[in-house]
Amino acid sequence: MTGPREDHAGGGRPAGDDVRPAGDDGRTSWGMFTDNPEIGALNFVTADRRVAAAGLVRHGRVFTLGIQIFSERGDPLSPDRPRAMHVRYRDWAHYLAGRCDPLPGGVASVDDGFFISCHGTTHVDALGHIIADGTMWHGRDARSAAAGLDWASVAPLAQQGIFCRAVLADVALFRGEDRLDRDHHITLAELLSAIEAQSAHIQPGDVVLVRTGSIPWFYAAGPEEFFRDYSEPGLSYETELIDWFRDNQISGLGSDTLANELPESPTIAAQYPLHRYLLRNLGVIFHEALWLEDLAADCARDHCYDGLYIAAPLKLVGASGSPVNPIFVK
Amino acid sequence: MTGPREDHAGGGRPAGDDVRPAGDDGRTSWGMFTDNPEIGALNFVTADRRVAAAGLVRHGRVFTLGIQIFSERGDPLSPDRPRAMHVRYRDWAHYLAGRCDPLPGGVASVDDGFFISCHGTTHVDALGHIIADGTMWHGRDARSAAAGLDWASVAPLAQQGIFCRAVLADVALFRGEDRLDRDHHITLAELLSAIEAQSAHIQPGDVVLVRTGSIPWFYAAGPEEFFRDYSEPGLSYETELIDWFRDNQISGLGSDTLANELPESPTIAAQYPLHRYLLRNLGVIFHEALWLEDLAADCARDHCYDGLYIAAPLKLVGASGSPVNPIFVK
Amino acid sequence: MTGPREDHAGGGRPAGDDVRPAGDDGRTSWGMFTDNPEIGALNFVTADRRVAAAGLVRHGRVFTLGIQIFSERGDPLSPDRPRAMHVRYRDWAHYLAGRCDPLPGGVASVDDGFFISCHGTTHVDALGHIIADGTMWHGRDARSAAAGLDWASVAPLAQQGIFCRAVLADVALFRGEDRLDRDHHITLAELLSAIEAQSAHIQPGDVVLVRTGSIPWFYAAGPEEFFRDYSEPGLSYETELIDWFRDNQISGLGSDTLANELPESPTIAAQYPLHRYLLRNLGVIFHEALWLEDLAADCARDHCYDGLYIAAPLKLVGASGSPVNPIFVK
Amino acid sequence: MTGPREDHAGGGRPAGDDVRPAGDDGRTSWGMFTDNPEIGALNFVTADRRVAAAGLVRHGRVFTLGIQIFSERGDPLSPDRPRAMHVRYRDWAHYLAGRCDPLPGGVASVDDGFFISCHGTTHVDALGHIIADGTMWHGRDARSAAAGLDWASVAPLAQQGIFCRAVLADVALFRGEDRLDRDHHITLAELLSAIEAQSAHIQPGDVVLVRTGSIPWFYAAGPEEFFRDYSEPGLSYETELIDWFRDNQISGLGSDTLANELPESPTIAAQYPLHRYLLRNLGVIFHEALWLEDLAADCARDHCYDGLYIAAPLKLVGASGSPVNPIFVK
Repeated sequence: MTGPREDHAGGGRPAGDDVRPAGDDGRTSWGMFTDNPEIGALNFVTADRRVAAAGLVRHGRVFTLGIQIFSERGDPLSPDRPRAMHVRYRDWAHYLAGRCDPLPGGVASVDDGFFISCHGTTHVDALGHIIADGTMWHGRDARSAAAGLDWASVAPLAQQGIFCRAVLADVALFRGEDRLDRDHHITLAELLSAIEAQSAHIQPGDVVLVRTGSIPWFYAAGPEEFFRDYSEPGLSYETELIDWFRDNQISGLGSDTLANELPESPTIAAQYPLHRYLLRNLGVIFHEALWLEDLAADCARDHCYDGLYIAAPLKLVGASGSPVNPIFVK
Repeated sequence: MTGPREDHAGGGRPAGDDVRPAGDDGRTSWGMFTDNPEIGALNFVTADRRVAAAGLVRHGRVFTLGIQIFSERGDPLSPDRPRAMHVRYRDWAHYLAGRCDPLPGGVASVDDGFFISCHGTTHVDALGHIIADGTMWHGRDARSAAAGLDWASVAPLAQQGIFCRAVLADVALFRGEDRLDRDHHITLAELLSAIEAQSAHIQPGDVVLVRTGSIPWFYAAGPEEFFRDYSEPGLSYETELIDWFRDNQISGLGSDTLANELPESPTIAAQYPLHRYLLRNLGVIFHEALWLEDLAADCARDHCYDGLYIAAPLKLVGASGSPVNPIFVK
Repeated sequence: MTGPREDHAGGGRPAGDDVRPAGDDGRTSWGMFTDNPEIGALNFVTADRRVAAAGLVRHGRVFTLGIQIFSERGDPLSPDRPRAMHVRYRDWAHYLAGRCDPLPGGVASVDDGFFISCHGTTHVDALGHIIADGTMWHGRDARSAAAGLDWASVAPLAQQGIFCRAVLADVALFRGEDRLDRDHHITLAELLSAIEAQSAHIQPGDVVLVRTGSIPWFYAAGPEEFFRDYSEPGLSYETELIDWFRDNQISGLGSDTLANELPESPTIAAQYPLHRYLLRNLGVIFHEALWLEDLAADCARDHCYDGLYIAAPLKLVGASGSPVNPIFVK
Repeated sequence: MTGPREDHAGGGRPAGDDVRPAGDDGRTSWGMFTDNPEIGALNFVTADRRVAAAGLVRHGRVFTLGIQIFSERGDPLSPDRPRAMHVRYRDWAHYLAGRCDPLPGGVASVDDGFFISCHGTTHVDALGHIIADGTMWHGRDARSAAAGLDWASVAPLAQQGIFCRAVLADVALFRGEDRLDRDHHITLAELLSAIEAQSAHIQPGDVVLVRTGSIPWFYAAGPEEFFRDYSEPGLSYETELIDWFRDNQISGLGSDTLANELPESPTIAAQYPLHRYLLRNLGVIFHEALWLEDLAADCARDHCYDGLYIAAPLKLVGASGSPVNPIFVK
């Protein structure tokens, strides 16, 4: 969940019989993965499926899906979160000014560090990121989140590594739009239609990547315009969607949006419901703020929408997410 | 270069006729890669070689080579560099204490950020990290490093992505030692013998991973012991070694050490000479502070020392390196 | 100088014969303070003047002029600068969750740190903060500012301590306004009239505090409104004003604004000219983003506008400023 | 409390009948200050006492008691705490390299920020810093410290400002030593003898400054030597000492040590007991890591050990302490 926090309950939402109260409905995968529950649905990525995913590399074309950090055009992240900061320890200016000397033999070096929000650029959410009713993923008591995460932080995901098949669902292209309207909710039906139109198909263990055109629009519009009355297009809540993720053993959901879902689903009185129903309840791994433009252009060219997907979060013990630069290879 | 800076010229080093003054000897690859010089020897990784590397995935076994950050046992990094810091914005304690409320629908979230040194955990060096004689890799004037890097920062490497074949050279195992002596210099002859003993071989575009046992020793010994009279085993300077990297089109060098080389080579009056002769002069990409123990155990078991290697630095514009969690897949 | 950087030359400014090109006109105090040049006009605060200033404490009423950091209402600082960040190392939640134990004897402790911009809250500018024509205060070559400040950083000011007389010039009250218009330029004539109306007078070594009502307006209006088409009321450039500061041996200028001056003076084709003509040329110490409301209310009550003023920057070696919480005592 | 955390109960301590269990003995000032309890014993500094303190300024000699931050000789702080870090945003090198341009009119500026631990240099402790038996100062439930401090943070102290009389008790000089032994415990009797030998006396509302020579020794010995088997001289626990602070209405305790007390008192089975019995129980404000050398030399010269003392913590909402640069004026 990366969007700005909303203080209102989404008053403009059409209320009707189909608006469901928040609740778990028994639709959880808690208890399903007993060996390594902290990685959730990533357990669906078996060794065989990894070998098969590697077999998708036929041309050697690599797409890196991370966005720039310290971009001249600004970095897209929720205004509620601290911005990334480059901390330069030693530049060539230090040597020129006589503040330090090259080592014996003449080697000088540039040295630096940086601060970044775990959810402040392209990143993977830890399963402990989301709590509802005092409970994290797998029914874990939220006390595990009292002072950092002592369970289901991003470290177990990083230890496992994410190496699997992914499918791009280019919904923007399917609708013939550069970018989806900021309030557009992608239904399961539309998602499946887009995938079918691409002649693609989903397999167990896959990461589903949804292209909306939102992140590119951030760079075109600038932060002020982007965050005014903030919303982003995305999947919205439906029980059928939740069931589809579970029944198809989807390991991850990614998109080129900050929030990875429509912040206010029209079908439920809840904000960021997919973070609850997919991440917390099913253990689906969220990949957020992806750069999908170059990949999408390539897929449109060769009509091939699947490939090998690798994301390697940093082993940040206790953290609720990690920046990543995912790689998609065809 | 990750080790502590040394203020002395290494007085104990045997001086002799074979001690060579620092200089470039014309052994550079400057001008070789005109299309994308900022990624240096990573240009050797062609599309065909990527496809071949993916073909090495036969069993779907994944090894993540990043070390933990915020480990209870401490984090190995030079005492000169600021330590990583976890910045917790919002924990479950905030909700318990009434400092904030769940969103409509009940979603609460844990949120955080972190500070880290670019060379302060497992990382990849940018080619602009090293300067000698006022010049960076490719002959670029060091003014490009006056205030951050405006050329050859880690961003171009991150844009490219590192996806290639790697070979583990388990020198510690070859010598029958848990870890090499902290002053042990690995000669080219010894490296080649170790590779040959493994029945492995090198191919163009490869990353060569050298296992010494040093990082594991950090965790066993603790920082005080580890950094007292600091040295680490590693490759040392020889013109033959430089030529071997160049002639074999090696794209990267990695190891389970902070410095990725013996800090004070016995054969040259220079500190960290490989950072000059391999990284700055040949554009070889350095992968440092890797965790190689699990991979090494697996290789010893199946006698297979090559595999697919992926490292995806973050697209940190202007930075001299990036933390990574490399993945090795067999 | 704390306001947002402007990329335009202030096109709306009336251009005329009285618009003067930027230049120093020989109006500098360079060379005047040979014993301790790094503290500039603070040299005017002699021991006798300190004793006299202490004598102004007649009632024991203390006013702390720093603004809050991490205020719930937001913190006023230029959007160009990184916001302050509270870094909580250890809270009571850690003890409750069993992450750490009280010490023998039962003592537990809360521990933390913070990041802050040197010019990101109430602060004092170092004299090395401003450069023009390649030269800092006192004619020092700007190379002293190549990598932090190796001369005229805030450390010498902090070593000296600021302990002197101050006079509040309540220009907003003088004009009968809650806050001055954001484009209002306070001329020397208006400043002197306001001081005269208060029956106050200036003495050598004084800090002059100018109240405009701008910082309170930040809290009332919020950051978005405050920074839209940003300007702030303040003193504007006049040669007479510069001469008045010099001739009266004013040691410091403070105000309840971010920039401590009208960002674009109508009388000169320059932005932030007082930072050049007062700070860089005369060595006047700038005290910015002060909270003057409570002090002003007290002064309006007892008609006494002078008092003892203390500001103690932190001894930040190499920094261009320091947060302070100045104290005014009557 | 600034020293390294100790994991053992101080095994070498002589156990005997006089070793008292930790407990509060009813010696608290809880409930005494109902108007502004968050500032504790600072309430003893009345307006009259401030006027009297200002009257101690007879010569205009100023001593700034903060230590340097980013000192070339290293900064003394517990190795458990993150070190301070200077974050340079913009140096003159940026202008030289063409990364940015001076403003219209020619003004260029150096800009920066910094990270610091609240207890990582000369600082003032908030009363909420210490918890025992689930309770903070004034009997406040420790839940107020669950996620930062929502009560008795350093902000109320900063809002009040510390402006009072202080007396230097130069115990090192009294004992004829450059610095006290690192295990030396200063008893109440010795403290009183030192004060008496100086012909000084204590008044209600005073801050008592104890000189031990420990911080200067840090700079002489270096961090490795200083923190090896860490201890520091200081006041140790006695019920008589606690009573003396209470009965004399002492507002604050300061010293030139990191911990402001002997970490392991020989008279009680507790670590940092004065943080419990003075700070948490009596609301005494702790001023730590002071630089007292220049002041002490001056006092030895003129035999005057009292003066005006000003400390102005930053208004850090929720923080457990604040760096300060206290000023002592005679």
